[in-house]
Amino acid sequence: MRAVDLIEKKKRGEALSLDEIKFLIDGFTKGEVADYQMAAWAMAVCFRGMTEEETAHLTACMAQSGGQVDLSALEKTVDKHSTGGVGDKTTLIVAPIVASLGATVAKMSGRGLGHTGGTVDKLESIPGYRTALSIEEFLDQADKIGLVVTGQSGDLAPADKKLYALRDVTATVDSVPLIASSIMSKKLAAGAKSIVLDVKTGSGAFMKTAEESARLAKAMVEIGAACGRRVSALITNMDLPLGQAVGNALEVEEALAVLQGEGPEDLKEVCLALAAEMIALSHELPAEEARQKVEKALESGAAYKKMNEWIAAQGGDLDAFAREREKGCAEYTVCAPADGYIARMDAQKIGISAMLLGAGRARKEDLIDPAAGLILLKKTGDGVQKGEPIAKLFSATVKDFGQAEKCYLEGLEWADQKPTLLPLILRKIGVESDG
Amino acid sequence: MRAVDLIEKKKRGEALSLDEIKFLIDGFTKGEVADYQMAAWAMAVCFRGMTEEETAHLTACMAQSGGQVDLSALEKTVDKHSTGGVGDKTTLIVAPIVASLGATVAKMSGRGLGHTGGTVDKLESIPGYRTALSIEEFLDQADKIGLVVTGQSGDLAPADKKLYALRDVTATVDSVPLIASSIMSKKLAAGAKSIVLDVKTGSGAFMKTAEESARLAKAMVEIGAACGRRVSALITNMDLPLGQAVGNALEVEEALAVLQGEGPEDLKEVCLALAAEMIALSHELPAEEARQKVEKALESGAAYKKMNEWIAAQGGDLDAFAREREKGCAEYTVCAPADGYIARMDAQKIGISAMLLGAGRARKEDLIDPAAGLILLKKTGDGVQKGEPIAKLFSATVKDFGQAEKCYLEGLEWADQKPTLLPLILRKIGVESDG
Repeated sequence: MRAVDLIEKKKRGEALSLDEIKFLIDGFTKGEVADYQMAAWAMAVCFRGMTEEETAHLTACMAQSGGQVDLSALEKTVDKHSTGGVGDKTTLIVAPIVASLGATVAKMSGRGLGHTGGTVDKLESIPGYRTALSIEEFLDQADKIGLVVTGQSGDLAPADKKLYALRDVTATVDSVPLIASSIMSKKLAAGAKSIVLDVKTGSGAFMKTAEESARLAKAMVEIGAACGRRVSALITNMDLPLGQAVGNALEVEEALAVLQGEGPEDLKEVCLALAAEMIALSHELPAEEARQKVEKALESGAAYKKMNEWIAAQGGDLDAFAREREKGCAEYTVCAPADGYIARMDAQKIGISAMLLGAGRARKEDLIDPAAGLILLKKTGDGVQKGEPIAKLFSATVKDFGQAEKCYLEGLEWADQKPTLLPLILRKIGVESDG
Repeated sequence: MRAVDLIEKKKRGEALSLDEIKFLIDGFTKGEVADYQMAAWAMAVCFRGMTEEETAHLTACMAQSGGQVDLSALEKTVDKHSTGGVGDKTTLIVAPIVASLGATVAKMSGRGLGHTGGTVDKLESIPGYRTALSIEEFLDQADKIGLVVTGQSGDLAPADKKLYALRDVTATVDSVPLIASSIMSKKLAAGAKSIVLDVKTGSGAFMKTAEESARLAKAMVEIGAACGRRVSALITNMDLPLGQAVGNALEVEEALAVLQGEGPEDLKEVCLALAAEMIALSHELPAEEARQKVEKALESGAAYKKMNEWIAAQGGDLDAFAREREKGCAEYTVCAPADGYIARMDAQKIGISAMLLGAGRARKEDLIDPAAGLILLKKTGDGVQKGEPIAKLFSATVKDFGQAEKCYLEGLEWADQKPTLLPLILRKIGVESDG
């Protein structure tokens, strides 16, 4: 078999077989198929697409290209993945909800590579929380309390990592089968039996329209089905950031509020929907029943109790976290520059603003200021008067808030009339749906 | 400027500007734009094409990527390029014809990379012929006798060489603008003011149909016009090899025959057409007048005289060549396996057959047997009876002709009825033609 012939085949619009995909991916992982050949193949895929079967083969080959987490000894394992978003702290809320209902969430989570921290960065704002567990500690905690979130160890799906890096510099990112297989290869390698995908849509998301998001969701659900996992997806609205907090400790605080029956309604609603879907899949229950269980877990305080249990098991001290939060840090109020309605919030600008305050990394080696971030007092659709506070900025490290304020304001679009908003949850894509 | 943005632009189907093309090609030549980026760009070009202007920019940038031959001090410089073919010895005939009429042919020619030798390999079958002239000797001979053919020295269009090698392993060869710019970048760097292109068409050629060939020819003519050269192209028939000889000394011998008023009619006809076109361009004469001059140069013996002058100037001894030829070598007659008409001759199979006899190189370091090759006694369209001789094989090095015979016969397709043949010269594509 020769790589050039497989590229040619894809270029002609034909589907590659499992053996052919395996030849490419294994060869690429080992360095036997050259970067330039994979780049040409990826560009041909951008133009020609891939069949469902082909996409499933690609995903499976990438999932098998490195270490795989074996969760088969655990009960009702369930994972959740979001296609990204600023201020997305849903994992911190849904994981304790579903674990309190008997599902197992054993998650290896990446650090934030973009402007704001990832789940692991958020958790590290809790004093003592250990993110570098051994695989034995990881599996043991998952077994005992049904919930563990650690940093990624080893090399899950190295072929995906290598291919993604290549796509990033060859203008071959925007292909549904390539995006779907990239996400799903890591999820397959991470080992959970059930997987719920939160596919963001809207101006702030990678997929700008509900149709595009549905296509991506459908592709991922199909991969899951082809690879023996239970997968479903919710298409959720990214026209406005979820909740009010952006920044690591701020988001943990907001998550704790939701688990205690407080916190923003939009965040709570999306978390309940995701958690219900996770329970429906992991427990194989009808949607209605799963929803009732999830609501009860939140209202009864069972989920909050599980959160405490989880953080303590991993060495975190929530009392110390609360004391740290009380100390406070420098803050600054951003005010509305004129009367009007917020018509659009640019997630990237909000993210960069948070990064400028110290909440994210400009470079991989940068340290994160856990206290840094924003509280969004007004969001898309809200009407404000000139001079009214619209956001609060926090930082323990930055002296001058001007740059972050400027960036934040640049991310806002204004209108004279109240804009029409998409619903929070647009639709669900499941194996049984006709997508 | 970032390569990834330029790839993205091409992927969207937009044309790159001169600055953008220059950034890519200069960066690629220096190793600053990665192979994988050029591969992705080339694949995008295969799907999206390039505008005329863009193709001209690409060609000019590649022509300027290395050394360029300065022929500006010479009169009426004219070059000729063929898109390849087995047994194509036209250069050996047209160069002396046009030089005898006052045009200057100063050619740096490559060695054969395929199955049979290139022009330089053919000339090296003449004892004493020097193919490694210094640039001073090269220009001096061109000035004195109007004709010099040497091996390629230095690095003409290194960007093209690098890009071609990359395209070859990434399934991005078959793009008209990429093929056209590859050929023309080398021709521009070679310095002649006028260029005549012999674009082969038919089952034995890279371009299988007259339409494809015309598209390629048109693209090259347009590049020439955009870059200040006079260029025209003839679309010629490759359904059957030109002449009868395939192999280095055999082809020189056939070329000498044509220059002495003998030799095969088809070869003579194509040479007269190419030479007339070269004279029309270099002397800026009407086609009819150029054709008359060329016929006269051949009939009067002026062209043959120029051939002798040229070979002698470059150290070659045609008497020694003739003595060498009289000695002969082992030969073998291939006979028709059945009654019928030859419906198709596979140029590649004929080429491999010649290579097996020692006429070409399987690897770059292989030595060539100048005496090796074939004489085609019957060609496409000819009817034969079983057992009738159809070809003669020659070799000074190979003992067993069985393998070459088998390969040769595999290259023939037979029919019960005489097949319809394309005319030898299908059309001309000039600047003024509407293609």
